[in-house]
Amino acid sequence: MLHILYIVAITAEAMTAALSAGRRDMDWVGVCIIAWITALGGGTIRNILFDHYPMAWVEHPEYLLITAGAALFTPLIASFMGRLRKLFLYLDALGLVVFTIIGCQIAQDIHLPVTIIVASGVITGCAGGVLRDVLCNDIPLLFRREIYASASLVTGGVYVAIDHWYGNPTIAMLAAAAIGLTLRLLSIRYDWHMPKFIYRDKWEH
Amino acid sequence: MLHILYIVAITAEAMTAALSAGRRDMDWVGVCIIAWITALGGGTIRNILFDHYPMAWVEHPEYLLITAGAALFTPLIASFMGRLRKLFLYLDALGLVVFTIIGCQIAQDIHLPVTIIVASGVITGCAGGVLRDVLCNDIPLLFRREIYASASLVTGGVYVAIDHWYGNPTIAMLAAAAIGLTLRLLSIRYDWHMPKFIYRDKWEH
Amino acid sequence: MLHILYIVAITAEAMTAALSAGRRDMDWVGVCIIAWITALGGGTIRNILFDHYPMAWVEHPEYLLITAGAALFTPLIASFMGRLRKLFLYLDALGLVVFTIIGCQIAQDIHLPVTIIVASGVITGCAGGVLRDVLCNDIPLLFRREIYASASLVTGGVYVAIDHWYGNPTIAMLAAAAIGLTLRLLSIRYDWHMPKFIYRDKWEH
Repeated sequence: MLHILYIVAITAEAMTAALSAGRRDMDWVGVCIIAWITALGGGTIRNILFDHYPMAWVEHPEYLLITAGAALFTPLIASFMGRLRKLFLYLDALGLVVFTIIGCQIAQDIHLPVTIIVASGVITGCAGGVLRDVLCNDIPLLFRREIYASASLVTGGVYVAIDHWYGNPTIAMLAAAAIGLTLRLLSIRYDWHMPKFIYRDKWEH
Repeated sequence: MLHILYIVAITAEAMTAALSAGRRDMDWVGVCIIAWITALGGGTIRNILFDHYPMAWVEHPEYLLITAGAALFTPLIASFMGRLRKLFLYLDALGLVVFTIIGCQIAQDIHLPVTIIVASGVITGCAGGVLRDVLCNDIPLLFRREIYASASLVTGGVYVAIDHWYGNPTIAMLAAAAIGLTLRLLSIRYDWHMPKFIYRDKWEH
Repeated sequence: MLHILYIVAITAEAMTAALSAGRRDMDWVGVCIIAWITALGGGTIRNILFDHYPMAWVEHPEYLLITAGAALFTPLIASFMGRLRKLFLYLDALGLVVFTIIGCQIAQDIHLPVTIIVASGVITGCAGGVLRDVLCNDIPLLFRREIYASASLVTGGVYVAIDHWYGNPTIAMLAAAAIGLTLRLLSIRYDWHMPKFIYRDKWEH
């Protein structure tokens, strides 16, 4: 079940990444690379940080083919993407919670401390999008946007707390997914933002 | 033989990287760091992704000295670089195929699947230049430029295919190098580009 | 002693990173992430390059809490930060030499060659700031600024040389810290810079 959702999530991430690449006039190679890095980069960075090898895409090279296929298919349907925008926002939100929960579970499997389990979820959920924005030469949206990393943090926190208190990973997973998804969708619907810290140097011009 | 070409390639990459740094008015330290990251970054990222330690430059610290020397020598001959531009484009093309083939061979040595062997070649060939452009605050040229990553992909694909069918890594290497180099040089000569995906949001202004 | 200085250094780095994030109007999540990456990123990259696991912040998750606390406290005192600017420049200089020496010691512990011990110091000292600037979409200051990476290089070189000749890591540490700190503070005081390499293509317009 989580595996099917994972495939759906990397496909959706690859397609939204392809749109980002298209906004920067990249060629097909650039579109593919941005799609791979966005869809698979979060898990890759997590694995590097926690010395957890091999990478998912090394064990399952078909992930590279699925995401490349989705990315290269995107230009063909780009003219409809405006109308599908809502659908992709929902799939992206789904991807965020699925990635976060998978990240928490992997950190649990290798017996990392509780704080790091939550961190692993947030890194898995968010780092792909940060890499995408750095490669597209933007300030990562994550640092400026609505409740995104925060939704990932809440998802991870709920998962860890319920799993700890009830000892039932399935219930923890469902509750975390429901709460994280609700929070993310409400933040899109009502345009919620985290407070910003705006700082200007007085001694600079 | 491949080792000598590797030294030539990292030297040439270090020098072109130094020019990139000079375009951004970096100081000598910045010139050195950009040169190291460009020349050695592709192999380093490959090794991180495939858990293949130690790094080449940790085993052979002289690579750091060679590339730093080449980078710091570049400002002295910068006024001639305009005339040498063609030479450096050729050396850069040579570097691309040499790095790609080395990347494929290393992935083969650690028995990775076929798709990943090609991916390893492309990562080794291209990631250094992507890091250079990110650090110089550009959108990576790789994503916008002529047949570059594609030439690396073709080189890797030819290498893997011939090695698989004929079981002769030397012939595979020579054929892959010849075809990859030809493709890259023709793309420079005739200004070939991959088709671009240009996308603009209709709901944005 | 070095451990206490390390805590002081990551706290100071987190606070100056929070100011960088504030200059880019990031929200609280962005402020935290930039602080983590700046304060802990140098050591993390070093550990990845040298396959040295686990990360300090995985073994001591309290580092994540200390740096997040310092970062989130910064907006509250931002209006005083102008006056405290000197203090933070000194703490940042202290952090640079402390990180550099720790980086050298870790590379020594895993028996890396001499050149790589110095490189490990410089990477530990400087890479966090490079990541911060890349994520804030700037050309890394390191590549353009006064004697910063150079001070780290001198610190590492002095440490390695004295430890080699006198075989006394404590004296090496104190001498390296004194010389590195002096060099960095003098370069701030007198606005010393490394010579720049400025290059413009003649065939481009």
